[in-house]
Amino acid sequence: MAIQPIIFYDIPSKAPGVAWSPNTWRIRYAFNYKGLPYKTEWVEYPDIKELYMRLEIGPCQILKSGKPYYCLPVIHNPNTGATISDSARIADYLDSTYPDTPTVVPAGTHTLQKTFCVAYDSVMEPLRPYIIPAITTILRPTSEEYYVRMREASFGKKLPDLVPNGDGHAVAWMAVQDGFGKIDKWMTESGGVPGPFVMGEVLSFADFAIAGKLQWYKKGFGENSDLWKDVMAWHGGRWAKLLDDLNRFEGSSEEMRD
Amino acid sequence: MAIQPIIFYDIPSKAPGVAWSPNTWRIRYAFNYKGLPYKTEWVEYPDIKELYMRLEIGPCQILKSGKPYYCLPVIHNPNTGATISDSARIADYLDSTYPDTPTVVPAGTHTLQKTFCVAYDSVMEPLRPYIIPAITTILRPTSEEYYVRMREASFGKKLPDLVPNGDGHAVAWMAVQDGFGKIDKWMTESGGVPGPFVMGEVLSFADFAIAGKLQWYKKGFGENSDLWKDVMAWHGGRWAKLLDDLNRFEGSSEEMRD
Repeated sequence: MAIQPIIFYDIPSKAPGVAWSPNTWRIRYAFNYKGLPYKTEWVEYPDIKELYMRLEIGPCQILKSGKPYYCLPVIHNPNTGATISDSARIADYLDSTYPDTPTVVPAGTHTLQKTFCVAYDSVMEPLRPYIIPAITTILRPTSEEYYVRMREASFGKKLPDLVPNGDGHAVAWMAVQDGFGKIDKWMTESGGVPGPFVMGEVLSFADFAIAGKLQWYKKGFGENSDLWKDVMAWHGGRWAKLLDDLNRFEGSSEEMRD
Repeated sequence: MAIQPIIFYDIPSKAPGVAWSPNTWRIRYAFNYKGLPYKTEWVEYPDIKELYMRLEIGPCQILKSGKPYYCLPVIHNPNTGATISDSARIADYLDSTYPDTPTVVPAGTHTLQKTFCVAYDSVMEPLRPYIIPAITTILRPTSEEYYVRMREASFGKKLPDLVPNGDGHAVAWMAVQDGFGKIDKWMTESGGVPGPFVMGEVLSFADFAIAGKLQWYKKGFGENSDLWKDVMAWHGGRWAKLLDDLNRFEGSSEEMRD
């Protein structure tokens, strides 16, 4: 029986049909890896909360402050009626609902896949002052205004003031390279799993998480920027190769399959 | 054919036969979980480098400064002649050398198990100012002198000055509880793997890593301390239960089996 396209809520950019959000990219890759039909609905930042209300689901997270947090990706599956938020939960849902498609979260690794993302973020902290301001340039006005206001409140400073410059840039950018170096080492040092991906020869959620971050940097910095060219050259070009390997799972603007 | 005991190098404490180091505990648990015979050789901190020279193995790590780093655990297997450093590499070695014993690092999870430890350390950072000074009290004089000198150089302050006190303690200790709360959430929140352990019903390296940290805190703070009692009570007693579940893999002072 044909599967009706699963509705996939993502955040738009100025360029029509161009996805950029690292967390939604995980699920975009997952849909294409699994060969599941899906249809993107683009939702601007200030409209995400309203989407949750309309879909009648609880917040994807309760912050330490006690405030509810509403974020994408969210999916709605018209075949089952299920609505799910949070990329790790969505990946699990797709695995268990469509067991005949390639597995994104191999059995028993749910917690380990999630903590891979925590470890990634902990070593890639130095990239945040570069990417957070950069991404504003590709958002549409309604999302840009919202994003800048929220992030400036969170950092306590104007976003352009976050970006390292002058001598500070050389040091800060080396820290970014070191961060990537740690991830490279996790995957290659003696005793590592043989194969190009986090779990070896087979793709999993963690690879989609890394590639999702790379998409974020690429869209934010621009393909012709020196920053992006640096990333593509580091560690024997392994980050460029990962994007190449996953290129066939990026999907098209058409998206409809069954 | 009987297996000769594998030599296991660990760091002693004042109490004879009492292990405390979080990284060596991972391998102590692994030996007992696998039912492999082993014999502990206790090595004081200042003698670890000399041990590496005597065993003719390279440093377990090259630091960012370019300096070699010598640490325990190290094992020497008289049955094969192999000498291995680094807990994750040792676990892999034991799995591949003794494939008929229970697996510590399930296939494909080597990188994920290591990054679980990175994620753990990133959220448990607030515990370091408590445990680093506390552990000095259980070391023998020769290790204590070395440990204090190295850690004070690294922190740039006297170890007793690290410990939060007064109002600072209440805030800092809550941050420790929050850190444990994040680990609890990784393992239990919706979509998590059912079962008490990181990979569900079956033990793996990540559980030995958590339990190794708990052993460290228990020995450093002392079983009757308020700090330790707090840890044992948090999150429905799940940390106490983990230690209980692993109690049968702590080994005895005898250690000889075959």
